[in-house]
This record gives sequence, structure tokens and C-alpha cells, in this order.
Amino acid sequence: MTISYNKINKLEAPHQAKCEVKIGDSVESLDTPVLVVELDAFEKNLLGMKQLVQEAGSKLTNQPTIRMRPHFKTHKSPAVAYLQVQNGAQGICCAKLTEVEALVNGSYSSVNWDILLTNPIVGEPKLVRLGKVAQQMKSKPDHPLLAICADNVQNIHDYLRIAKEYDVQFNIYTEINVGQNRCGIDNLEEFVQIVQEIVKNEPQLHFQGIHAYQGANQHVRSYDERRHNVVGPIKQRLEECLRLLNEQNITCPIITGAGTGSFQFEIESGIYNEVQVGSYLFMDVDYTLNLGQDDQLVNQFGQSLFMYSRVNSINAKSDICPRLIVDAGLKSLSLDSGLPWVHAPEATEPLEYISQGDEHGMIVPKGATKFQNPDQFKLGQIIKLIPGHCDPTINMSTHMVGVRNGKVETIWYVEGRGVGL
Amino acid sequence: MTISYNKINKLEAPHQAKCEVKIGDSVESLDTPVLVVELDAFEKNLLGMKQLVQEAGSKLTNQPTIRMRPHFKTHKSPAVAYLQVQNGAQGICCAKLTEVEALVNGSYSSVNWDILLTNPIVGEPKLVRLGKVAQQMKSKPDHPLLAICADNVQNIHDYLRIAKEYDVQFNIYTEINVGQNRCGIDNLEEFVQIVQEIVKNEPQLHFQGIHAYQGANQHVRSYDERRHNVVGPIKQRLEECLRLLNEQNITCPIITGAGTGSFQFEIESGIYNEVQVGSYLFMDVDYTLNLGQDDQLVNQFGQSLFMYSRVNSINAKSDICPRLIVDAGLKSLSLDSGLPWVHAPEATEPLEYISQGDEHGMIVPKGATKFQNPDQFKLGQIIKLIPGHCDPTINMSTHMVGVRNGKVETIWYVEGRGVGL
Repeated sequence: MTISYNKINKLEAPHQAKCEVKIGDSVESLDTPVLVVELDAFEKNLLGMKQLVQEAGSKLTNQPTIRMRPHFKTHKSPAVAYLQVQNGAQGICCAKLTEVEALVNGSYSSVNWDILLTNPIVGEPKLVRLGKVAQQMKSKPDHPLLAICADNVQNIHDYLRIAKEYDVQFNIYTEINVGQNRCGIDNLEEFVQIVQEIVKNEPQLHFQGIHAYQGANQHVRSYDERRHNVVGPIKQRLEECLRLLNEQNITCPIITGAGTGSFQFEIESGIYNEVQVGSYLFMDVDYTLNLGQDDQLVNQFGQSLFMYSRVNSINAKSDICPRLIVDAGLKSLSLDSGLPWVHAPEATEPLEYISQGDEHGMIVPKGATKFQNPDQFKLGQIIKLIPGHCDPTINMSTHMVGVRNGKVETIWYVEGRGVGL
Repeated sequence: MTISYNKINKLEAPHQAKCEVKIGDSVESLDTPVLVVELDAFEKNLLGMKQLVQEAGSKLTNQPTIRMRPHFKTHKSPAVAYLQVQNGAQGICCAKLTEVEALVNGSYSSVNWDILLTNPIVGEPKLVRLGKVAQQMKSKPDHPLLAICADNVQNIHDYLRIAKEYDVQFNIYTEINVGQNRCGIDNLEEFVQIVQEIVKNEPQLHFQGIHAYQGANQHVRSYDERRHNVVGPIKQRLEECLRLLNEQNITCPIITGAGTGSFQFEIESGIYNEVQVGSYLFMDVDYTLNLGQDDQLVNQFGQSLFMYSRVNSINAKSDICPRLIVDAGLKSLSLDSGLPWVHAPEATEPLEYISQGDEHGMIVPKGATKFQNPDQFKLGQIIKLIPGHCDPTINMSTHMVGVRNGKVETIWYVEGRGVGL
């Protein structure tokens, strides 16, 4: 099945985007560095996740419906989120208010987005924005409530005040620390106090469930260890939470969490009924290194995202340092999870990317001091790179270009990008 | 001396910026994460560099005039570049065409910018943009020529074609590899060929000099080693270049390079007559670690740039992991040169920032397992961070806020930000 991008392509580009690319342009004509999504692989990932979630859910004896709520923070593009909700997603997760605003006010503002903001919102400037965006959502017919997280009683007091001030209601998830030691409640007595505080403040606030995400577990290489973490200590902690709520006669409709590296285990645990997958659409070097049950690299999803760069200086025959310099550096590629890989199956030898600063990367023969055949490289040639970490890399670009058969078929604007302001 | 920002503040914000900050706002009212420039320190750095360059130049026996051409890639803000040319700078360096376009078409398009683009421009999409922006510069009265770099004969052929097509002229610098092994000519025979090719193609192209920048040397910690690299091997290589040009009766008007970590040595070498300083305005952790002649930390410039973040989750008394979580992660702070430092002189103990992903950082007591006084911290409190590396951190923000005495005095838009498109 091939998806048509005609409807998406008819939308106006958001005013903040600067993009000279046109539908139908050839890949060779693109200015670089540019994020290119190869659509055949992308669509296989998009539809493949829907199937994998259904399959994993069907194995459960208690047969809950597993909801898929992909993470907007991966792509920050309303166009891509729209493709996800058209293809099996219940709604969307956002990590930041900026992302919620991009969905509610951006190119796809006509969609009735079902949004879960997966972080507590703190500080008066953000609380005001929260009230405003919830009010905008409310102005649409049959609007879903904006869902937000809390890990402190103070959050509940703030949300209640804002709900009254802006005449809105919120769905609230309590965030539990399940091993990442980031946001989230450590002390389960506090957890119960917070939930009681939410329930007490109906109808402005509704207790919707528990947010329990373990980011670090996504990149544990061993299959058994990744699985153990979820179906062992995380499951145990959440069962303890449910037991405590049960003592209070409080129902917990949803337990949400999981990512591309672990979602099958969260489903298997039988305690999660919503999975927040994200990177599966694109993949990156970091995810590619995860191992499956057979100790081989996981290959459920294929690499669809590439940074196309150009050789802008060539010293392939140099006696000092044989190298190609490309125009993609750390202002276009996030290096937090390691360096990008070079994807050049047509080259006579494996190539390696070495960081050379803000605007440049260096390409050298991997494990050798000289290129076998330096004449195969040309100034201006396009070199494809696989980003080390997809989310923060996409965050640096204003747009991504979807290509098939060497032609641009669609352009997606990263409308929710930014530092989080 | 205090600089007035009234004129800058009257300019329209560029349309791509989204910024709720207003002049006169209190620091506490700012949404976070936000880049804050403390103006007293900033102005001291701005004027201090002018004086240091003059002083270093005055010690030379052959008395050349040392030109200061600060690097736009540090701040990417036409407003800041304007302050630099008002305070001793001859012109501006840009690393990317996007930056040149931001100066020529941005908020300060009325200024006759004297620009050196410090990289070779390669590939048809960028060459077309080069022609267009040079044509825009030409349309202004008394316009300076756009200066660009070349490290390949193919560059010269491309520039000549574009110069004819767009009816413009370019000043050309040849880029020499002086040890960084990035762009730049390795083989000095090729260097002479390229210069001959430029000279042959007057009047479209003018040979303006040599670009010789050693980025890695900026962060060599030892004073003696930093100095040796410049006045030793780099000077030698450039003298060899001049000797070869002399044999061809070709004059080399300018040798340009240097950065905040080494500019005094480039001036001392007697061979450079232009210095491309940048980070001195703001400073960062990486520059702070450089040592002076006395083996003490260099303190010529003070830290003026901070990322203000808010505590958005607090578990300061936790038995699992005592921590504060702040809302500035790797989408607002570039970690390429290491983690940010916490600047909290009012805290009872040293604090440490630990990366916690795209949107979060963790603050813990440095070298201890518990906070001495956990009650000193509050949810929503502002924590000031010193970025590890200023340039790519600023590149992630749409604006910086200049403050004095706790009030916003000016707002600078990072108009030249982006991946380089």
C-alpha cells in the first residue's frame, strides 16, 4: 500500500518555515544538509507498528484493547501526526507545550487532536499558555480534553486554578518514577495524596491514569534485560500503585508509557493499555543497535530517515589526511547518542563520519589510513548519513522532505521544534 | 560605559521569531528555557576585545593594523553584529550562506555589511543562492564585495560562472589547512594553482588573501602549547605560502584567522592582519577551562551568557535519587563540548547538571549523595546554567534576552540560525 500525500501537500506552509523545496524536485537538486525520509521505508514502519501492536495485544489472555499514542516529540510535524491518527493511533503524546500549540494552532488546527502532554507543567508563563491552549481546544465541537501529567501536589493546585481561570477541564495522569529518575513520583504515599487531590477537584480535573515511561530502557541492548525491566520491577511498581488506588476505591482507566525499544514488553506485561511509540517511523543508529531475542540486531523497522549532505571540500588523495569534508555538522545532527553512520552501499569500502565542528563532518575510510579508490569521490557529491538520534536531529530542521524514486513527494514542517519555549 | 539598546529595540522582530518577551519584563517572569545575556558582562567583553586587539597590535615592530572581524556564527544575530561593527570591528565573518542572507536580508538589511564567508561554497543550490545574495549586496550604494573562500580549482570555476551570471564580483580567499584537517588546501602546489586561477580571472574575481583558521587550537588548555602552535608550525606554513606567491609576483593583502582562544598569538606572529574572534562576547564552559601563562584559568572575558531553566519536578528529599529536574535538555543546550555548569552562588553547596534527555536536565549535589538542605529548593525556581559550547547552543534558540538589574533591556533574534540551509 502506498499513501497519497496530495491532501497534505495542499496545505499552506507555516509562516515560520523557510523552504525552497518543491514537490517533484529531484533528490539531486536539494540544497544540503537536508533531512530526507524515504517513503517506502517510512510507510512500512507506519503500518508495521499498527500490526505489531495489534498482534502483541491479541496474545493477552485478559484481552484489553491496546491503544497506540505515538509521540509527537519524534517528528514535531502535524502532517506526520495526522498520518499516524489515520493509521491506527488513538491520539498523540506531546513532550512540551510548544508541541501542543503546534498541533492546536498549526497547519492541522482543524483536526480535533486527542493530546496527552507527558510532563508536569510548572511556572506561571507555562501555566498561562496551558490555559490558553486548552481554551482553544475547547472552542472546537466534540473536543477531547487536554491530558497533562502531575508528580507534585503543587501541580494539582496550579492546574485547578488555571482550569477555573480559563473555564476548562483537564484529564490528569500522575507520573510515576519507574527507574529513569527523571520526573515522576518516588514516594507512593505522595502518589496517593496527589490522586486524592485530583479526585477531590472534579469536575475541573479528572484522574485519567498513570504515566510510567522508562526512557533509558529503550536503549538497553539485550532483549532479555529490556524485557525483564518491564515485566519485572516496572510491572511490580505499577501493581503496587493499583493496589493503593484500589484501597481508596479509585479506578485507574489508563496506564500509559513505552517506546519503540520496549513496547512489546509493556503490552506483554498486561498492565499497560497504551503505548507511546515514536522513533519507529524513522529509526536511527541508537535504535539500530538494539538486539532481539536471537541476539541479532532487531529489524522490525527499517531506516527511513537520512541526512543528505554534500562534499564541500575534497582531499581524498592527501598525504596529510585523506578526507572528504561534508556540510552537515553538529548544528544539523545531534551527537548526543553518538555519531551518524555513513550510508553509502555503492562505495568500494566502508566509510566513517567524524565530527568536525558546528558546520562540518569528515568522511574517512573506516579502519584504514587511505581510500582504496579516491577517484570515486567528487566535490559536490551527496553523501547520505543515518542520524545517531532521530528526535533532537529533527528538532534542528525546519522541514523534512519525503522522497520516492528520487523525487520529492511531500514536505513536512517541523512546526513544534524549538527549545521548548 | 553602558550601551543604549533603544535603536535596536525599535526594529521589527523578524517574522520567523516567536517570542513573548517584552522590554522591561522582569527576569522572573520569563518562560524557560531561555538564553539570557547579562549586559554588564557582555559590554565589558565587547569593549575589552577591542582594547586587547589594539594592545597586541601595538607591540608589533612592523606595526600593521590588525583588523577585527568577529564571527557571526557565534550569535547569528544581526543586532549583535551591528554592536560589534559599532565597536571596533572592520566587518563580519559568516560560516554559512544562511548567515550571510540573515545579514543582507534580515532586520539590519540597511547596513552595508562587509562580509567574509569562511567556507567554500559547493553545489548548484548554494551557488545560486551565493549569486543572488551578492547581487542584493551590489544593489546598495558603496557596497563592499562579498568575500568567499576556495580550496579547490573547481571552486574558482564555479564562482566565475556565478559572477558572470549574476553580474557581480567576489573577493576570494584561499583556505589553507593549518592543522585542523577540515576544509583547506593540503598541497601548496595546488594553492599556487588556485591563486593563479583567481588572478587570471580578474575583474570578476579578486585575490584577497589567505584564510587560515585552526579551530582545535582554541581549546588547547596549555598557554605555551596554544602559543607554540600559532607562532611555530602555522606561521611557518603561511610564510611558505607567501614565499610561493612572491615567486609569482602576487601580493597577498590579508591573512585572516584566529579565535577567542588564540587571537593574541596570531597577532604576535606578525603574519596575520585580521582576527576572527567570536565566543569572547558570551564565553562558555569550554573556553573557561583554557589556562593562561601563569597556569591559572584565563579571565580576560567574563561569562555573560546563561540558560535560565526552571525546576519542573522536585524530589530533593528522595530516598531513591535526590534530584531537581529542570526544563532545559539537549534540545536547548548543545552537549558537544560537555555538560553545562550550574551557576548558583546562592546555593549552600556546589550543584551539578546531568543530562536527562531531550527536554530535561537533572541537578544533584556535586560529589555527594544527598542535598545538605533540600528545603532551599522550590518547584518553579529558576536555575542558571552556563552552556558547554555557546555557538551551537545559541543556534537552537530563536532569540536571546539582554538583561540588567533583573529587567529585560533588549531582545536579539537569532536570525541566522538553522542547519545551514
